[in-house]
Amino acid sequence: MQALWLEKQSLTFRAAVPDPKPQPGEALIQLRLAGICGTDLELLRGYYPYTGIPGHEFVGVVLEASEPSWIGERVVGEINLTCGRCRECKEGRPNHCEKRVALGVRGYPGAFAEYLTLPLANLHRISPGIPDETAVFTEPLAAALEIQQQVMIRPDEHVLLIGSGRLGLLVAQTLAITGCDLLVTSRQQRTREFLATLHISAIFPDDVPVRQMDVVIDASGSMQGFDLARRAVRPGGRIILKSTYAGTMDVDLSSMVVDEITLIGSRCGPFAPALRLLESGKIVTRPLIDAQYPLRDGLAAFEYAAKQGVLKVLLHP
Amino acid sequence: MQALWLEKQSLTFRAAVPDPKPQPGEALIQLRLAGICGTDLELLRGYYPYTGIPGHEFVGVVLEASEPSWIGERVVGEINLTCGRCRECKEGRPNHCEKRVALGVRGYPGAFAEYLTLPLANLHRISPGIPDETAVFTEPLAAALEIQQQVMIRPDEHVLLIGSGRLGLLVAQTLAITGCDLLVTSRQQRTREFLATLHISAIFPDDVPVRQMDVVIDASGSMQGFDLARRAVRPGGRIILKSTYAGTMDVDLSSMVVDEITLIGSRCGPFAPALRLLESGKIVTRPLIDAQYPLRDGLAAFEYAAKQGVLKVLLHP
Repeated sequence: MQALWLEKQSLTFRAAVPDPKPQPGEALIQLRLAGICGTDLELLRGYYPYTGIPGHEFVGVVLEASEPSWIGERVVGEINLTCGRCRECKEGRPNHCEKRVALGVRGYPGAFAEYLTLPLANLHRISPGIPDETAVFTEPLAAALEIQQQVMIRPDEHVLLIGSGRLGLLVAQTLAITGCDLLVTSRQQRTREFLATLHISAIFPDDVPVRQMDVVIDASGSMQGFDLARRAVRPGGRIILKSTYAGTMDVDLSSMVVDEITLIGSRCGPFAPALRLLESGKIVTRPLIDAQYPLRDGLAAFEYAAKQGVLKVLLHP
Repeated sequence: MQALWLEKQSLTFRAAVPDPKPQPGEALIQLRLAGICGTDLELLRGYYPYTGIPGHEFVGVVLEASEPSWIGERVVGEINLTCGRCRECKEGRPNHCEKRVALGVRGYPGAFAEYLTLPLANLHRISPGIPDETAVFTEPLAAALEIQQQVMIRPDEHVLLIGSGRLGLLVAQTLAITGCDLLVTSRQQRTREFLATLHISAIFPDDVPVRQMDVVIDASGSMQGFDLARRAVRPGGRIILKSTYAGTMDVDLSSMVVDEITLIGSRCGPFAPALRLLESGKIVTRPLIDAQYPLRDGLAAFEYAAKQGVLKVLLHP
């Protein structure tokens, strides 16, 4: 089959990778559409040493499965494959399974290929009302919703979102539906106009009020995001971290004690509510799609996705 | 009056400081007993540039007050003096008042003196059943209880407390009453024996289990505490920071996103429950007192309090 291949921070297109063989309990899935995410770009930059087929945002159709009811179903899939036996799994936190592998990120071949496999337990059926171009946002939208899985955002709170990229513009929308008083940092005319159509207020990073925000979400994807978050949050407030990048930060922990700041790391989220929100039409995704490429032009797709200001780039077989 | 005086990281005894004059709404308080805290020692090391009379843990008796019912009362006092008008005050977070001063820590003369003043609103009456030597622990015990004000400690959780010094041995006791499965790091035979009398398990720092603890509290007072906390906490777990010290830490924020760690800064806490617990006898304080000095020997008292392994040192007029 055709697939993209990542090795030693270098991406190639391969025309004849062996087709994957589903294990018992797994489905064989034919790719319909996949999305390039910030994490894919960070993998290329060496954020995590992954070798194999990348890609974890996808829509596909089930070709083979031990349970016949799945065959022919259009699906999205949760990316973490878990052991089911460790303490994290047993206590209901499978996303933190210490033996987990993750689709196209860690120890398991990903979705930038004609075919992929996943356990049936990871799959979610897509309602006919959700087109592929919408369903492909399920995984990042679930990651956005993880914020509300972890912390209560009160409707009367002043919330700042730092970052209005691929993930940020989904987080902006999941935050806005809480009714909170939301500001989103953006320097770009295009994203400011998009936010305006959603009745979400944009603010230039330099204009962010100091020590005023009840909650700050850093989805900037860069170290500078944390410094701005720390400056913006009020005493006793919360900072939610959605960004992963290589390297460490110099942090004044004592000032976080004095100001009683809470810092919350936030990663993967729940698929079912993401699909419900996509079906309801409450989340706007179409304007976030900047390009579609066939798999064989995957390198050009990655190059385009890495450009400043480019949002979602999709791949199809 | 006699008082200790801190200036440019140097402590002196002064035999004739002018007596303080209470403002409207304030009480004039005669000192009965005061405690030296880790923050006092950090002030001497330059943690915060304070000039004046230090000291914020005290028991006193009210000599003058606009409300006669207070006169002659034995009291403890909350250390933050607040404006009552800023957003933090109005929204019920006076401990984070942006214009606050703090008794003996920031902009307001402290308790290591024969007399001090505080607003009546800051005072709490001490029940006759609580001796001075117990009541003097109200302020640090309140700081320990701030943990339960901020986060829910479930009775079935595995909790690690790093640090078994002045504050740590109070935090150990307030954690233990939640019923949680508690481990406390300690290298010293004396504190291990004290913890054993309280049926609290001690552990050597090198023996702390990796990625197992639901909650880790760092009351070590040093930077090394955070590294150990990060190593010990399970994915999805919480780290509570009680330590303040000069300097910044190199922190891997991305790993906190991947592991979805929550970090909670924790400072001053509620006096009323601290007094209730002290009256109930559920908190053991007497073995924590290592020495008592008169104010005029305050320098010797500070010198002794700074020695490795020394717990609470008290001052009296």
